[in-house]
Amino acid sequence: MPSRSVDDDPRLGDVSEGTVLRAILARTIPAAHTILGPGDDAAVLATPSGSVVATTDTLVHGPDFRLAWSSGYDLGWKSAAVNLADIAAMGARPTGLLVALAVPRDLRLSFVEQLADGFRAACEALAPGCSVIGGDLTVSAVLTIAVTALGDLEGRAAVTRSGALPGDVVAIAGELGLAAHGLAVLFGRFRDGDAPVPVDAAQLASGEPAAVAAQLRPAPPIGLGPVAAVAGATAMMDVSDGLALDAGRMATASDVTLDLSRAALGDDPDRALAGGEDHALLATFPQGVLPPGFRIIGTVVERGTDGVLCDGQPVDAGGWDPYRDWDAAAG
Amino acid sequence: MPSRSVDDDPRLGDVSEGTVLRAILARTIPAAHTILGPGDDAAVLATPSGSVVATTDTLVHGPDFRLAWSSGYDLGWKSAAVNLADIAAMGARPTGLLVALAVPRDLRLSFVEQLADGFRAACEALAPGCSVIGGDLTVSAVLTIAVTALGDLEGRAAVTRSGALPGDVVAIAGELGLAAHGLAVLFGRFRDGDAPVPVDAAQLASGEPAAVAAQLRPAPPIGLGPVAAVAGATAMMDVSDGLALDAGRMATASDVTLDLSRAALGDDPDRALAGGEDHALLATFPQGVLPPGFRIIGTVVERGTDGVLCDGQPVDAGGWDPYRDWDAAAG
Repeated sequence: MPSRSVDDDPRLGDVSEGTVLRAILARTIPAAHTILGPGDDAAVLATPSGSVVATTDTLVHGPDFRLAWSSGYDLGWKSAAVNLADIAAMGARPTGLLVALAVPRDLRLSFVEQLADGFRAACEALAPGCSVIGGDLTVSAVLTIAVTALGDLEGRAAVTRSGALPGDVVAIAGELGLAAHGLAVLFGRFRDGDAPVPVDAAQLASGEPAAVAAQLRPAPPIGLGPVAAVAGATAMMDVSDGLALDAGRMATASDVTLDLSRAALGDDPDRALAGGEDHALLATFPQGVLPPGFRIIGTVVERGTDGVLCDGQPVDAGGWDPYRDWDAAAG
Repeated sequence: MPSRSVDDDPRLGDVSEGTVLRAILARTIPAAHTILGPGDDAAVLATPSGSVVATTDTLVHGPDFRLAWSSGYDLGWKSAAVNLADIAAMGARPTGLLVALAVPRDLRLSFVEQLADGFRAACEALAPGCSVIGGDLTVSAVLTIAVTALGDLEGRAAVTRSGALPGDVVAIAGELGLAAHGLAVLFGRFRDGDAPVPVDAAQLASGEPAAVAAQLRPAPPIGLGPVAAVAGATAMMDVSDGLALDAGRMATASDVTLDLSRAALGDDPDRALAGGEDHALLATFPQGVLPPGFRIIGTVVERGTDGVLCDGQPVDAGGWDPYRDWDAAAG
């Protein structure tokens, strides 16, 4: 991105709402399903198959990101990606995003422009045809990015969390634990006391740039959501809070137990089980069905005492609960 | 609402996310168009007429509300109402809400329960058949309520801001300036220095309770949005930032001038022109068309120098721009 001088880059408190909106809209391309885009009281999106899938997810400065680690571009990208993943996890194709921004008045205009660039880039890379169709801009002491994603099931039934059946295989598409690895690198090496400090690429060892990128700009396999649905997935969800915790949710919803294979969980199975924010797609399929892009990590069995087993043994759920885990003082 | 002891009313930081979500869901009724409600990665809403109308609007503690004046119930109601009004302003019927809550950890659980009650009550009163279909819960130092509303056009085209034609009448449904009157009462009489203090009903003169209620729990005429569309409205929008400012936006979008009649603007025309947050529906209709619930306040003429006139004279736009008008220090 071309940088510009601070003189050229006003604080949001010094420009009109219209100026900010024009800067955002200049970076927004029409979504394929758009009937009416931004600028009126509401947007209108075509839903040819007779339903719309809708989800909302928010990133808040503090519990969800640090500005020393995340650029505006990163935040736009991540805010889009986490919502697109929820649409994909229903077996749907994302069609549009609504972005509610609450921004401090001393934020620079260029930051909002980078946000808009990040939204656009994530949509183009992860969900072509989808883009920002509407939004809202307000002031807040805490930078907050609330995104709603809409999607289309293309005539299929939604793939919920509750359809897994004993005998199905458990499969995953996307990364497990990579974003958590990135977060550990950031917390471990890019803090000065309590305050985060900017990432210096020279301090990253082999493999770490990919992990940090997975944390800051996750790239879940959005297109594989519809692929899984077409293939006959019996249940699906995105893994946002860690495999153990989210698999437990699927197990509860489906009233089954998911028995995972430790050997299938990569180099660091504990991190794969506990690490959140990869937004991989966890799905179950009938025996013999496995669409491209998915790999088998376990089997579905009759419900037992525990919802999730690993090689037949209970698993500590771990995972991330913002109420429990975020400590503002610790930064 | 039954009150309960503080011992019975934990802070959100001391309970699990699941506890909070269960409390909210217990207060949520299914929307008429719901195919899949809350609890999965995303909700699914039927869109029989082949499109969905979508809008988002956020209330932030500080610029948008004070907790001394607004209860959780008020905030749920208002967050719903302002979004429902944007759907109605397209001529659509609201079908579902998604609520992204960012809440401080020291907030009481009962506050979130009241929020959910307020959302439900506003939907039942203003837009029967619509309700909360999904949401997100995260922690933040600043209480933030970001709502997305979805709606259905029932086979009609959307009524935009850009269709007003010279010769049309300008009409309004709902209040003008009442919410601003309420805000003036609150700012003028319910502050102790910089800090807001709770409203004491005994200090309200005749007419003021309705004005304060209009500010805290606005009741825009949501059902009249589809009525206006069926009747043939050429343009429509909701008046959120003041009639003069919003009429100017419609005039610009339609490339016309709206000439308003001061005599039609009620007891306090200046307040009617400048006062925001009533979310009345501003619409233009062909001569001779005026659906029940709307009253004529002017005529559309060829575009002149000014977008809005009052009895042929230019009007100071006034209105509310959060960037310009919110001063955190002043409270």
